[in-house]
Amino acid sequence: MRIRERKQGDGQLKLIPLGGLNEIGKNITVLEYKNDMVIIDCGMSFPDDEMYGIDIVLPDFSYLIKNAEKIRGVFLTHGHEDHIGAIPYLLKEIRVPVYGTRLTLGLVENKLKEHGIKGNLKTVSAGEVVKLGPFEIEAIRTTHSIADSLCLSIDTPIGKIFHTGDFKIDYTPVDGEPIDFQRLAQLGREGVLLMLADSTNAERKGYTASEKVVGETLESIFRGSEARIIIASFSSNVHRVQRIIDTAVMFGRKVAVSGRSMINVLNLAIELGYVKIPAAEILVDINAIKKIPDKELVIITTGSQGEPMSALSRMANNDHKAVQIRKGDMVILSSTPIPGNERTVSNVVNRLFEQGADVIYSDIADIHVSGHACAEELKLIHTLIKPKYFMPVHGEYRHLHQHAVIAESLGMKRDNIFILENGQVLNLSKNRINMSREIVPAAPVFVDGLGVGDVGNIVLRDRRLLSESGLIIVVASIEKSSGEIVSGPDIISRGFVYVRENEDLIESARIAVEQRLDKCRENGVRDWGAMKNAIREELRDFIYIKTRRNPVILPIFMEV
Amino acid sequence: MRIRERKQGDGQLKLIPLGGLNEIGKNITVLEYKNDMVIIDCGMSFPDDEMYGIDIVLPDFSYLIKNAEKIRGVFLTHGHEDHIGAIPYLLKEIRVPVYGTRLTLGLVENKLKEHGIKGNLKTVSAGEVVKLGPFEIEAIRTTHSIADSLCLSIDTPIGKIFHTGDFKIDYTPVDGEPIDFQRLAQLGREGVLLMLADSTNAERKGYTASEKVVGETLESIFRGSEARIIIASFSSNVHRVQRIIDTAVMFGRKVAVSGRSMINVLNLAIELGYVKIPAAEILVDINAIKKIPDKELVIITTGSQGEPMSALSRMANNDHKAVQIRKGDMVILSSTPIPGNERTVSNVVNRLFEQGADVIYSDIADIHVSGHACAEELKLIHTLIKPKYFMPVHGEYRHLHQHAVIAESLGMKRDNIFILENGQVLNLSKNRINMSREIVPAAPVFVDGLGVGDVGNIVLRDRRLLSESGLIIVVASIEKSSGEIVSGPDIISRGFVYVRENEDLIESARIAVEQRLDKCRENGVRDWGAMKNAIREELRDFIYIKTRRNPVILPIFMEV
Repeated sequence: MRIRERKQGDGQLKLIPLGGLNEIGKNITVLEYKNDMVIIDCGMSFPDDEMYGIDIVLPDFSYLIKNAEKIRGVFLTHGHEDHIGAIPYLLKEIRVPVYGTRLTLGLVENKLKEHGIKGNLKTVSAGEVVKLGPFEIEAIRTTHSIADSLCLSIDTPIGKIFHTGDFKIDYTPVDGEPIDFQRLAQLGREGVLLMLADSTNAERKGYTASEKVVGETLESIFRGSEARIIIASFSSNVHRVQRIIDTAVMFGRKVAVSGRSMINVLNLAIELGYVKIPAAEILVDINAIKKIPDKELVIITTGSQGEPMSALSRMANNDHKAVQIRKGDMVILSSTPIPGNERTVSNVVNRLFEQGADVIYSDIADIHVSGHACAEELKLIHTLIKPKYFMPVHGEYRHLHQHAVIAESLGMKRDNIFILENGQVLNLSKNRINMSREIVPAAPVFVDGLGVGDVGNIVLRDRRLLSESGLIIVVASIEKSSGEIVSGPDIISRGFVYVRENEDLIESARIAVEQRLDKCRENGVRDWGAMKNAIREELRDFIYIKTRRNPVILPIFMEV
Repeated sequence: MRIRERKQGDGQLKLIPLGGLNEIGKNITVLEYKNDMVIIDCGMSFPDDEMYGIDIVLPDFSYLIKNAEKIRGVFLTHGHEDHIGAIPYLLKEIRVPVYGTRLTLGLVENKLKEHGIKGNLKTVSAGEVVKLGPFEIEAIRTTHSIADSLCLSIDTPIGKIFHTGDFKIDYTPVDGEPIDFQRLAQLGREGVLLMLADSTNAERKGYTASEKVVGETLESIFRGSEARIIIASFSSNVHRVQRIIDTAVMFGRKVAVSGRSMINVLNLAIELGYVKIPAAEILVDINAIKKIPDKELVIITTGSQGEPMSALSRMANNDHKAVQIRKGDMVILSSTPIPGNERTVSNVVNRLFEQGADVIYSDIADIHVSGHACAEELKLIHTLIKPKYFMPVHGEYRHLHQHAVIAESLGMKRDNIFILENGQVLNLSKNRINMSREIVPAAPVFVDGLGVGDVGNIVLRDRRLLSESGLIIVVASIEKSSGEIVSGPDIISRGFVYVRENEDLIESARIAVEQRLDKCRENGVRDWGAMKNAIREELRDFIYIKTRRNPVILPIFMEV
C-alpha cells in the first residue's frame, strides 16, 4: 500500500498509551512531536476489589507535568468517566485547554463545578478541524453508548493517525446520526499511517445490536403492562433515557426520576437539547408519585450495577424515601453487570423478586446492548481505514491480542501491529516505526478521599492484612530508668475474634507474651526492637497454632 | 392429575432447604417425618468478597445437632464441594452414616483423611434402594459435570418425592451412561407428589451442550498444533480429564499433571476405575518434562478459576518450579469463570498472552460446557416426572423464580409451586401442603482457619472498616494517683497513609489530640471512657476534614 505522507517532517513522533487500570490506552493517549504534545482523553478507572478503600484510580500525570509547557490541549472523544473523569485532577496540576463536543464538555463542566475549579473548555462539532501545534485534529461523528461521541483523524508531520475512540457501528441510532462512513472511506483513500482502535469486544463474534433493539424491547414490555414500571439505566446513556421517555409518552405514562446522577445528567441533556421532553407535564416529582395510578407512571433511576447506595438498591432494600416496591411492580435493569459487579447486581435482583416485583434484566430479555464494536464491525473499520500500521487499544491485553488476530486475518502483517503496555512508547519517524526502549511512568495512582497518591502499595498491603485476620495490639509501659515493665502487657484486638466469646484465648495469648518478656529480661534483652520482635514471634506462633490465622501483630511500648 | 399415594401416613413430613450461601437448598436439604430425619447432601460454599478472611462458609448445623438422634443418614447426590464439603464438619458434631456412589465417597474419604477423622461410609450404586427409617431412597443415574452423579426418588409415608440433584441432560456423556429416562418416566407414571429440581441455569434458554462438544474442540486443537499444550480444568470433572488423556494418546502425546487437587483426584479416579490410562508410560512426572519434545506433551493442571496460588497462576507469573511458559505454548482454560472470579481469570489470561503463549478460553472457543440443565431440559424433566407439587432449589432466588415461571408455562398452578428460603419449612401431610411459620436457623457459619463460627458479623464489620481506611491508635500512659498523662499521647497508624511521607499530618493529629486532652483536664474530665470518646471525636473530625477518610480510631490508655 502506498501512503501519501503529506507534510512529512524529519522529527520523531511519540505515541504513548498512558492510562487505564487493566486496560491499555483507555484513559489517556499522548501524542508528542518535538516541542508539542496533545492528550487524547483524560479518564479515570474504578478500583479492583483488592484496592481496599480506594475511591478511584487515576493515570500517572508525572510525564505530563514534566512536559507541561509542551501540551497544547486535551482532546476528548466522549463523555464517559473513563475518558473524562481525571480532567479535574489534571487541571489542578496543569492549565490546558480542553476540547470536546457540547455534551462531553457539559459533563466536564459539572465535574469541574464539583471540584470548585474553572477550565478553559472549547466546544468542537463533528466535522471541525482543530489545529494544535503541528497536529490537525479532525472530529468525526461516531456511534457509542453516549451521545455526541467522536473518532479522530489526526494529521501529524509524520502522517495521518486515526483513533476510533470508543465506538460501535449503529446503523439505526436513536438520534438518527450514524457514524460518518463517507469521511472514514475518504480517510482510507487519503492514506492512514496508523490506526488506534477500540478492542473492548474483540473477543465477541458478529455484530453488536443497535440501540433500536432496546427500544423495541421497551415498547413490547410497556405495551403488555399495566404495572408501575421502574427502569434503572446508566445516566450517561441519554439516548436510552430519551427512548424510555418517548415510550412512556407513547403509552400515556408520566416520568419521575430518582438518583442524583440521573437527575444531573438529565437536566444537562435537556438543557443542551440532547433529550427532548414533549411536554413539561410529562415529568413529575418523585415525591408526588403517589397521586399517579401505577399504569400511568414510569420511574427512571440509577443503580443498574447494584451500587449499594444507589436509588435502585435502596428500593430493593425497602429503604427509599419515595418508592416502596409493591407486588406487581415491573422493574427493568437496562444494563449488563460490569465484570466484578455480578454479585451486587444479583443481590438487588433477588431482593426485588422477594418483594414481589417482576424483574426484567439482560439475562432474560434484550434490554441492553453494548456500546462497543464486535469482531465483524472491527473488520469493517479496518477495511474502510486501511491503515499501514495498527495499534489495538482500549482493552485488556487479551482483547488487544484478539484484535491483532482479527487484523492479521484481514491481511495485515504481524510486524505492522504494535501491542503496547501503558507507558510504552511507539516512535514514528519518516522511514521507521518501532517500539522505544523509553518507558514513561504509568503506574495507577490511587485516590482515597482527598488524598491523591498518598495511599501506595505498602498501605494497601496493610489494609489487606488487616482485612484478612484483623489486628492484635500488645501494649506495655516501660520505666525509663530501670527498663522494667510497669504496666501491661495488655492485649487489644480488632477484627480478630469476637472477644467476649474468646476471653480464654486472649488471656492465654497475654500470658504467653508475658512469659516471653520475662525470658527477655532474664536474658538481659533490653533493646525495644528485639523485645518487640520477640513478642511478634511469640504471638504469631501462638495464634497460628491455636487458630491457623495470621493477624497483624502490633507491639507498642510507652516509656514512663 | 391423580396421585397414587402409597403408604400414606397420618403424620407430617417436613422438608427444609437448609444450606447454601446465596443459593437455596444447595448445600443441604432436610427431610423429617416424626422421629426420623434424612439429610440430602452436606456441602459448603465459598465466601463472597465482603467476607474478609473467611476460608469457607458452612450451613448452620444447629437444627441437625438438636435432632441428632433422629438422623438416619446423609445421602449424597454427587461429589462436588458444595454437596460434600461440609461432611467433615458435620461428622465432628454428629456420628451418622454417609451414603453415596463410589466416586463421591472416595472424594469424601480424602476429605476425612485431611481432617483426621473416620466416617461410616456406605457405598450405593445407581438402581439401589436404601431404607432409612420411613424413607426409601432410590439412587437413579443422572448426568452432571462430575461422574457418578445421582438423582433421588424418595418414598415417604406422605408420598413420593423426587430430587433431581445437580444435573444436565447429556445424551452423549463421556462414560456412555446417559440419565435413566426409563426410570424417570416410570416414576412419572407411578405418581410423584413433589419434585425438587436444580434451577442453576433456569434463566438460560435452550439446551446445555454435551460434554462431547468439548472433546471435539479439544481434538481439533490437538490436530492443528505442534506446540506444548497446557490444559487447566476442574479436577473433579474426571470425564473431561479422561477425554484430555484420550486425546493426548490419540495424537501421540504424553501427559504430565501439576496441581495438588488434580493429582489427588486423578489418583483416586484411576484407583476406582473412573479414569483409564491406556498404558502406564503415558503419565510422566512433571519434573521430567524437559526430556519430552513440545509436540509430544500435554500438561494437565489446576487453576482454571485464576486462583492466585494455583499451578496455572504460578505458570502465568513465571513462578512455577517445573513449567516455564514459552513463546508458542498453547494454554487452554477449560472452564468459564464462576461469577466473582472474572478479574482473576482475566489477569491470568493477560499474563499468559504477555509471555507469548496462545491462550484458548471459553470466550473464544467451545472449550467448556455447563453441568446444569437449561430451560428446555428443565421442561423435559417436568414433563417426565409430572409432579403434583414443585419446589425449585439450587439457585439464587432469581433462578428459582425463573424456574417457577417455566413450571407455570407447562401448566402447573402457581399455588402448587413453593419457593422457600433456607431455613423455611414446607409441611406435607395427607391432605395438605403448606409453608410452615416455623423457621429453622440457617444463617451462614464462617470458617476462618481452625475457627468455626467464631468470626461473626461484628468481627467482619471491623475487618471491613480496617480494610477501608486503616487504623489510627492513640496511646497514652496515665498515672494512677494523679490522673495525669505521664507519657504520650502517641499516634501509631496502619493502613492509613504512608507515614514517612505524611509526618506533618500525623504530628498535627497528635497535637489536636493533646489539646483535646488538655481541655478535658481543664474541665475536670477524668473518666477514661469520656476521655477516649473525646479523642475519637476529635481525631475523627480532624482526619475527615483533612483527608475525607474514616479510619478506625483506637485510644489505648495504660495505667502506671
